[in-house]
Amino acid sequence: MGSASRKTFLPLDPGTFSNQSKAVIDFIADYYENVEKYPVQSTVEPGYLSAMLPESAPYCPETLEDILEDHCWLSWEMLCSGFNVVGFNWISSPAATELESIVLDWTGKMLKLPSSFLFSGTGGGVLHGSTCEAAVCVLAAARDKALKELGGWKNITKLVVYASDQTHFSFQKAAKLVGIPPSNFRLIETSFSTGFSLSPENLRFAIEDDIKSGLVPLFLCATIGTTPSGAVDSTAELGKVAMEFKLWLHIDAAYAGSGCICPEVRHYLDGVELANSISMNPHKWFLTNMDCCCLWIKEPKLLVDSLSTDPEILRNNASKSKAVVDYKDWQIALSRRFKALKLWVVIRQHGLTNLMYHIRSDIAMAKRFEAVVGEDERFEIVVPRKFALVCFRLKPKVEEEDLNRKLVEAIMQC
Amino acid sequence: MGSASRKTFLPLDPGTFSNQSKAVIDFIADYYENVEKYPVQSTVEPGYLSAMLPESAPYCPETLEDILEDHCWLSWEMLCSGFNVVGFNWISSPAATELESIVLDWTGKMLKLPSSFLFSGTGGGVLHGSTCEAAVCVLAAARDKALKELGGWKNITKLVVYASDQTHFSFQKAAKLVGIPPSNFRLIETSFSTGFSLSPENLRFAIEDDIKSGLVPLFLCATIGTTPSGAVDSTAELGKVAMEFKLWLHIDAAYAGSGCICPEVRHYLDGVELANSISMNPHKWFLTNMDCCCLWIKEPKLLVDSLSTDPEILRNNASKSKAVVDYKDWQIALSRRFKALKLWVVIRQHGLTNLMYHIRSDIAMAKRFEAVVGEDERFEIVVPRKFALVCFRLKPKVEEEDLNRKLVEAIMQC
Repeated sequence: MGSASRKTFLPLDPGTFSNQSKAVIDFIADYYENVEKYPVQSTVEPGYLSAMLPESAPYCPETLEDILEDHCWLSWEMLCSGFNVVGFNWISSPAATELESIVLDWTGKMLKLPSSFLFSGTGGGVLHGSTCEAAVCVLAAARDKALKELGGWKNITKLVVYASDQTHFSFQKAAKLVGIPPSNFRLIETSFSTGFSLSPENLRFAIEDDIKSGLVPLFLCATIGTTPSGAVDSTAELGKVAMEFKLWLHIDAAYAGSGCICPEVRHYLDGVELANSISMNPHKWFLTNMDCCCLWIKEPKLLVDSLSTDPEILRNNASKSKAVVDYKDWQIALSRRFKALKLWVVIRQHGLTNLMYHIRSDIAMAKRFEAVVGEDERFEIVVPRKFALVCFRLKPKVEEEDLNRKLVEAIMQC
Repeated sequence: MGSASRKTFLPLDPGTFSNQSKAVIDFIADYYENVEKYPVQSTVEPGYLSAMLPESAPYCPETLEDILEDHCWLSWEMLCSGFNVVGFNWISSPAATELESIVLDWTGKMLKLPSSFLFSGTGGGVLHGSTCEAAVCVLAAARDKALKELGGWKNITKLVVYASDQTHFSFQKAAKLVGIPPSNFRLIETSFSTGFSLSPENLRFAIEDDIKSGLVPLFLCATIGTTPSGAVDSTAELGKVAMEFKLWLHIDAAYAGSGCICPEVRHYLDGVELANSISMNPHKWFLTNMDCCCLWIKEPKLLVDSLSTDPEILRNNASKSKAVVDYKDWQIALSRRFKALKLWVVIRQHGLTNLMYHIRSDIAMAKRFEAVVGEDERFEIVVPRKFALVCFRLKPKVEEEDLNRKLVEAIMQC
């Protein structure tokens, strides 16, 4: 079955896309033809959906017919737009809320995240649009926890955030957005000798320096697969330093996280149990279209403490009971689309088997390309490849930077 | 023509939806069939799109065939997902960028915003997902401008934000997110006697008090059509106070702003020329599905100063020339979808004439409902209706709050 699925696996086939999309449209049109038959407010009980769905993602792909038939109220990006669900809290859309929690657990299990990050354990997850939004939210949660412990908002200018010079620039933007002074953002230098990964020793030096200056180390971002070169920071080693100094450790696995569904890649996430939060973007390498960023967090309460609002107009018995997740308190915006639909359909339509096939196929292509480039004496590989990103350049290197810039421009204009 | 369009105007007809959606799907499938024929990177020049499109939104509706044929690279929400455009900056998608600027100018002109808010004047606009995101961005811009003038980040705890007790709670959340101490958020009390609008006198008292205490007034949010009762703050009067004390004045017209395309409603926006920024959500009352929030700003440079990032990987000649808009610097996230498509299609498919018809029809229905309720001695109207929101309750009022809560619950369970 696994190899049969692989043979027919084509992530973007216009014919299939067209047929499936038209089935979805008929489904939406039918919903609106009959919209007056449905109740204004859902009448289900908290947890109704997890009772109906498997605990883990399917291993083998499923057909769209099965997916649509199975659950007469869900599917794909178009359905998300078509139904125009506005799911701030559980009561406004139990399906949108519960499916999101289930899909985050499914994806977390595929990545073998510890149960401390899953709803089925002691944590939980949420879908954001981008890493920067996720970063703003976890930074705000870390900030507010620290300010409470330090005795007030006046300490905000003492808080320090750590990252490497390879960390995605979104974290600097996010830290500034939540009011951390830009002069308190430490971009720790990396080098070729460590494969551009963040050195735990240098991190420790920076932290100790800041403590001596009366500052308060707050937050560390470690990256699995950096944007410039696919470098991997060692969560296991950095996690120890973070624990020692009580830093909030966030793992940005935006791109390479998807690869960790394959057992042979998973070791890059070793040490994840030491982190407070981790994010991964299915819109990068997981066949999901923009925008889709998974954020898992060990203590969702801290996110809610920082971001919750409780206006009269949104009060309801389900929220009061604390038995439900109100995702408005896990993100910046109040309103939210039915975000989980597309990721749910991606997982069901491909199944774990084809998703792994897709990752392995990309890595195999990159390996082959790396070998071809390596054999060509005009080029050199800049850093060893870890995932499906190959960093190469024309020799000679530094002296003629323009030459490589011209090459990039030529490729872009193909 | 106008009345002919009105007769056939049905914002959500399942049959039309189905036919049009299938045409869009064929369009996307065709694109992917031929994707290898297209260049990797766009080769157009900045401003190419405004040369092709009219300066203002069409008055009369257009057919989907015309819209698709006219511009062989654009349409609707599905196309946005289908093409999966990731438009951080101009060069990554000139069409997504320029169409967004054009649609913001079109919509701004429909609202008769002064040219100081339009790209065709000295300002500009951007699409966010929600008011809260827009609020985070303008608050950060105001904050960073003030901190620069005050001489550094240590002054962040002095900054004060003003709003009324009717202002949407998103502004409190946004202010806290950007690091304004929650104790520096002033919720100025309103009352029935002023129709729950913010009193300029009370605002002045609050500002003067804060200045005496050594604090720095930063930001004022005025609302056109509050969430609880549809109240309107007087921008003309509040604007004078804001100018006097150099506050950043933001107008939240999330819901009622759409209504201001009708000349007889537009007066609620009088004084908008005194504001620094204004936001309106087409996903509320403008036939656009979630999520879509227009933000116009007089000095886009302040937004960019606060939110811009300039990493090596995104450098390009178009950005360097400063002749283009890079929307990544106008919002929280780096990545963005082709956000303008759906609003553009809504405007073209309905035309100003049918959009006005839709607003007037809703207001007429609300008027009729208000009259019916007013004639029934069991009910009372709580505040006079301004837009299409009617606030009513069962008498007696305060003593039996439970009775009205039961009524709400009964309606929700219909």
